[in-house]
Amino acid sequence: MNFLNEVMRRHPKAISFAPGAPHPDLIGEVDVVHCLNTYIRHQAQVHAPDERKHLLEHLEYGPAQGIINELLAEAFRNDGMAQAEGRNITVTNGAQEALFLTLRAIFTSPNQVLAVTNPGYAGILGAARMLDIRTTPVADTENGPSLDDLGALIGQARSQNRSIRALYVAPDFANPSGNFMDLASRKSLCRLAQDEGVILLEDTAYGFSSPASTRPPTLKQIAPASTILIGTFSKVGFPGARVGFVLAEQRVQSVAGEFLPLASQLATLKSMISINTSPLGQAVIGGLLLEHGLSISALGERHRVLYQSNLKCLLLALDEQFGSSRKFAGMLEWNRPEGGFFVRIRTPMAVDHSLLARSADEFGVLWTPMRFFSLDQSCDNELRLSCSYLDHAQIEEGASRLRDFFEATL
Amino acid sequence: MNFLNEVMRRHPKAISFAPGAPHPDLIGEVDVVHCLNTYIRHQAQVHAPDERKHLLEHLEYGPAQGIINELLAEAFRNDGMAQAEGRNITVTNGAQEALFLTLRAIFTSPNQVLAVTNPGYAGILGAARMLDIRTTPVADTENGPSLDDLGALIGQARSQNRSIRALYVAPDFANPSGNFMDLASRKSLCRLAQDEGVILLEDTAYGFSSPASTRPPTLKQIAPASTILIGTFSKVGFPGARVGFVLAEQRVQSVAGEFLPLASQLATLKSMISINTSPLGQAVIGGLLLEHGLSISALGERHRVLYQSNLKCLLLALDEQFGSSRKFAGMLEWNRPEGGFFVRIRTPMAVDHSLLARSADEFGVLWTPMRFFSLDQSCDNELRLSCSYLDHAQIEEGASRLRDFFEATL
Repeated sequence: MNFLNEVMRRHPKAISFAPGAPHPDLIGEVDVVHCLNTYIRHQAQVHAPDERKHLLEHLEYGPAQGIINELLAEAFRNDGMAQAEGRNITVTNGAQEALFLTLRAIFTSPNQVLAVTNPGYAGILGAARMLDIRTTPVADTENGPSLDDLGALIGQARSQNRSIRALYVAPDFANPSGNFMDLASRKSLCRLAQDEGVILLEDTAYGFSSPASTRPPTLKQIAPASTILIGTFSKVGFPGARVGFVLAEQRVQSVAGEFLPLASQLATLKSMISINTSPLGQAVIGGLLLEHGLSISALGERHRVLYQSNLKCLLLALDEQFGSSRKFAGMLEWNRPEGGFFVRIRTPMAVDHSLLARSADEFGVLWTPMRFFSLDQSCDNELRLSCSYLDHAQIEEGASRLRDFFEATL
Repeated sequence: MNFLNEVMRRHPKAISFAPGAPHPDLIGEVDVVHCLNTYIRHQAQVHAPDERKHLLEHLEYGPAQGIINELLAEAFRNDGMAQAEGRNITVTNGAQEALFLTLRAIFTSPNQVLAVTNPGYAGILGAARMLDIRTTPVADTENGPSLDDLGALIGQARSQNRSIRALYVAPDFANPSGNFMDLASRKSLCRLAQDEGVILLEDTAYGFSSPASTRPPTLKQIAPASTILIGTFSKVGFPGARVGFVLAEQRVQSVAGEFLPLASQLATLKSMISINTSPLGQAVIGGLLLEHGLSISALGERHRVLYQSNLKCLLLALDEQFGSSRKFAGMLEWNRPEGGFFVRIRTPMAVDHSLLARSADEFGVLWTPMRFFSLDQSCDNELRLSCSYLDHAQIEEGASRLRDFFEATL
């Protein structure tokens, strides 16, 4: 991503479809001080009468497993995300540390392979690289990971004395593909995972961007024993808190021989890389949740509305610029996600660094080459557009610049 | 440490010489909101006129290398800690992540060994364990790591086709030994490290607890090319921020072939485990530094005074309880550090979990078995006392309970 950051620095005035960061207007609404006070007041009520202790909680060290675990568990239950208990949760430095710790804990042999939806989130690829874990791509279809692909990989691994230990999957408008798994495909994936003993690492980052009424159950709800639920408050709260989580109640044996929740083993590992997640950040996120009735859905509602509006605007702008033109007919294809931040565009040409540099230099528009997110060559002709950091006028102007760019390059 | 936490939970009323956490009175003085506003105001002045951007900086994602690097560099220069520049610093989730990332970056072969002052900080041992890095103990003397020991280890490693890649050392009132390196021993260690190509991982956690006027230069000042400077704001600021740092301007080759500061490579690794350090925590620490003239010494001055007073109180209480008693003559020995949080007591008996449990259950006093911090058996008869989390009356009562405990067990 260094190259992308470099291009963005060089072109501060370009319209950028690159960052998957939350919209500044939503971030700007977060009142850190108010949230912090809400959390402190709540703690004083729950744990009185030693009030002073709770006044200092956000400033001191805290347990490696986290301080807002019970609030998170209640939110997961309220939102129907999982039958969670606080002791089965570890609060992490964003979802990234959650992924890193989980991989570190569940991969115990070099013969174990991590399957990743392809294209897939760069963070899981980075964490696996840090840990020298072998990865293999599974094609990401409009309905999520291809079960044919996954089945074939499981068989192939077995024939090589290896095993597919886990599959990373983001069922809700995945980054970078925008794909969304319907109920049937969720059930089929869970069945396969249960039958084959594959752990599902379910990333819920964009779950909030489905309306609660139409959101299918999480994989964690369908197959709790096979699934580890991972998430972040970077999209629905604010990234500066660096608060994510793992829900993993699977029992594993500790060094001392006891059977403990995996979440507790993750906390032990966490104590060796970061001691604990900033209690200050946790307290602010705890306050944010309390102010939204302990519901991530409720907390994310204004976000959902804004991003869906941006996404519609982007899809409309793409239709306007490319849909009716003979020149582009059959040349450019894109998907039509109903949530999340991302649209995937397929082109007939190689989409790489130099093409991005040209788009930035000559046309003032940025995007992300899909190959950044891929373990193979299958996405080399694609690019990712993100609509999260822009306003409608910027999206429309950006689409028009994209047209100029494609006019010149196709 | 789980056992220790468990014992502390079971005995909430015991007097605990166990935690190395900062005193609640000092923590309670931190005004998060004021510090945050100070930082935001400063950023607006420095980077005007796009004010809105700076209002959001603590809420958004930020560069993996950190946002307060220039403030830290100025503080290091002001305090004479190092000739630092911001681009050579990576801001981390406490010193723990700094240690983890640095080990991950500089250990590139299984033949490389990490030497650790013994007894040594549990955090470095944990980070090495997470990374499967081979460790070897170097005796920690009153003047820091034994150079005889280190020299012998270097020779021994060489004869086994291995090398001592780095030495972890905390020259200022180390945790857990309380040892302090004078100028001569610092110079000798630096010379040996330079001659033998050993990297010094200098942990500055307790540097603030020397009066600035008598503090010898850091290893980083004496041998900048051989030393990587690591530190935390947990003791001198507040632990809940989870803000630490690495200063590492050594040039290393990136994957792309450029020569970049090691700090920049650490940031790349960091992006794979935690993306970035909470900008909220960084902003508050930035504000705290700004309010103390960008000087860690100035920021730590009230802390230094309180801990030195606690330490004097503890040493006096030990003298009173054990110094004049015939029973204990020659049985108990302890060092007399002039700073930091810790005193090291040598006893004639094995000091382990069960002895700690007895001390807690029967005598209401807690401490830490030194074997928790050791790679060999040399500290099995020792215990660590910390004075940081207590008041004078508690210290005196705790020492009296310690006497009852030793009366019964020796």
